[in-house]
Amino acid sequence: MRTPASPQSDSTIHGARLVVNLRAIAANYRKIAALAAPAKTAAAIKADAYGLGLAPVARCLAKAGCEIFFVAHYAEGVALRAVLPGARIYILHGLPDDMADRYIAKRLQPVLNSLAEITTWRKADGQLSGAILNFDTGISRLGMSENEAAKLVAEPGLLAGVRVDFVMSHLSCADEPEHPMNTQQLAAFNILRDLFPGIPASLANTAGIFLGPTYRYDLVRPGIGLYGGSPDGTGNSPFQGAVTLYAKILQLRDIDSKDYVGYGATYRPGGPARIAVAGIGYADGYMRALGNSGFGAIGGHKAPCVGRISMDLCAFDVSSVPDELCGPGGEIELIGPNVPVENVAADAGTINYEILTRLGGRFARSYIGEGADA
Amino acid sequence: MRTPASPQSDSTIHGARLVVNLRAIAANYRKIAALAAPAKTAAAIKADAYGLGLAPVARCLAKAGCEIFFVAHYAEGVALRAVLPGARIYILHGLPDDMADRYIAKRLQPVLNSLAEITTWRKADGQLSGAILNFDTGISRLGMSENEAAKLVAEPGLLAGVRVDFVMSHLSCADEPEHPMNTQQLAAFNILRDLFPGIPASLANTAGIFLGPTYRYDLVRPGIGLYGGSPDGTGNSPFQGAVTLYAKILQLRDIDSKDYVGYGATYRPGGPARIAVAGIGYADGYMRALGNSGFGAIGGHKAPCVGRISMDLCAFDVSSVPDELCGPGGEIELIGPNVPVENVAADAGTINYEILTRLGGRFARSYIGEGADA
Repeated sequence: MRTPASPQSDSTIHGARLVVNLRAIAANYRKIAALAAPAKTAAAIKADAYGLGLAPVARCLAKAGCEIFFVAHYAEGVALRAVLPGARIYILHGLPDDMADRYIAKRLQPVLNSLAEITTWRKADGQLSGAILNFDTGISRLGMSENEAAKLVAEPGLLAGVRVDFVMSHLSCADEPEHPMNTQQLAAFNILRDLFPGIPASLANTAGIFLGPTYRYDLVRPGIGLYGGSPDGTGNSPFQGAVTLYAKILQLRDIDSKDYVGYGATYRPGGPARIAVAGIGYADGYMRALGNSGFGAIGGHKAPCVGRISMDLCAFDVSSVPDELCGPGGEIELIGPNVPVENVAADAGTINYEILTRLGGRFARSYIGEGADA
Repeated sequence: MRTPASPQSDSTIHGARLVVNLRAIAANYRKIAALAAPAKTAAAIKADAYGLGLAPVARCLAKAGCEIFFVAHYAEGVALRAVLPGARIYILHGLPDDMADRYIAKRLQPVLNSLAEITTWRKADGQLSGAILNFDTGISRLGMSENEAAKLVAEPGLLAGVRVDFVMSHLSCADEPEHPMNTQQLAAFNILRDLFPGIPASLANTAGIFLGPTYRYDLVRPGIGLYGGSPDGTGNSPFQGAVTLYAKILQLRDIDSKDYVGYGATYRPGGPARIAVAGIGYADGYMRALGNSGFGAIGGHKAPCVGRISMDLCAFDVSSVPDELCGPGGEIELIGPNVPVENVAADAGTINYEILTRLGGRFARSYIGEGADA
């Protein structure tokens, strides 16, 4: 295993660099779209495209055929509109009271989560552009209840003139295929959907798509799978990894059993050891929970993280890495082919989503693959 | 207890807002400077001023009297130079081989961590601007060893023409005043310092300053204390809190004992409960580890975090919060006078530093206090 060549090596001035493979993201999109067809495949691109960069990822997905995008906040919608003037953009977090005119001005479409939001949208826009009606079927987050759905049916005036593109809900346990919540939410969603005959429906995120065709309806909304993440949080992802993270090696130290490494003096080696100090820390999103538990790789050789993670630095035991692969100015892979993001997540006690979305702003970022020059 | 009035309320378009109190940061700087005198007081302003915003914090500290700043990376130094043309700026992460000319062009001064870096600097700059010699006394991170110090003394040519502003080291356990590493590092540093007579010395971070006058030498380098954090990680900080974080309440839900909250169906209430769904999640740095363990406050009333934290959302049990204080469009305090950052850190299993430095880029940010309009 070798470290892939870098298209640009700005880790010198930043301490670390993130390489996003747009070809992998496009391939992952096409794979999901083929699997989900005849359902359409949208893209969840909130949180700066799961930490990978909204603009290049959005352009890449649009080029791969994606026409419908979901973001969380209005501000994210505005940023995405500037990148994709023609895309359909839904705002998951609904429609605040005084925001309808701003949504309309930017052609942003709300996911309506309450009767009050429906009323606001009806008064402001109504016929012009479609909205999504979101119902909560068991995650107790955003969305209307069964009772509110019944009220919408009983009082048709509430929706008079509102163009409804989809009815939707969101699964809470799709990453655990055997979890009873999945079939419960499916049943609850089918009841709701029957209240709105003829209106297309959407339920599945990445993991939901893999629960089978009955979960796919008319529109699927993958996120993590596009970015290479495994639907069930294991390292067995059917998708291509899209992210590699390298940190610069700032210094090598030869230490022995009397020496401690890092804050709190939590680690010392059993005998002579060589430590590489890397220019990345928890301020970069390399989580503090990885101290004494994570690992990196150099030329495919594993290097365990030793001692606590500092704000801007951390240390790896490179005793078993051949000298010629490991020197100041070299790099250590912290996410990539030899260090799956799911392993990083497990070592940090969290999930791949949090690792990706917390990748910091201090990295040098580069994009490879199709659309990288756009 | 009341929620402080907000100077601008852009959480509508972002989901959350961060308010940084520059007056508190200035007061904290002056408090440390008074305590540390006659030692000079620098400021550690790396990692975007510990997540609070490099430019406004730098301007505020300069106005409060700070003349010396420490950042981690060259890129951070460049950003700081643009804000403070006259400040003295040291780069903690040393001097890569090919970077000396770029340092000189921006008047950035390296903390030299190896003999190789000293040689690079001597050849490139030498007399022009001063550097710091950094020695490792027990944290096994960056810096030269005792042997390398001895070599510098034995071969004066190695330093010929290099202007040395300070000799420095860094403490590993200063937040634990009784830890034996503190006196060991102090003793090791005194030996090193005696090798370079007449050259000023620097050892203490915020916590080190509180270990007593013998740790302060000629220059102290506080970070966390400036930003209101407690030196020992407890909530008993001698400093003024500088950060408040509010998330917008997007929706209220009345649920009962049959309902689950959040991904994985990890939480359900014992009986009827009211849940506030807030527009912040782990992508914003509200760490996933806070699920079912953190809390927020509304009008001073505690509201426990229930269920897992989502990427962009999380839920709080607001059953005990009076209705008139809690509605959609309102806000919940997640860091602030009623929710100390040290409590957030403890609930997340980490330290105040990580909470601050991971505050995300999706917030609306505003600055209050002196210099806020600069």
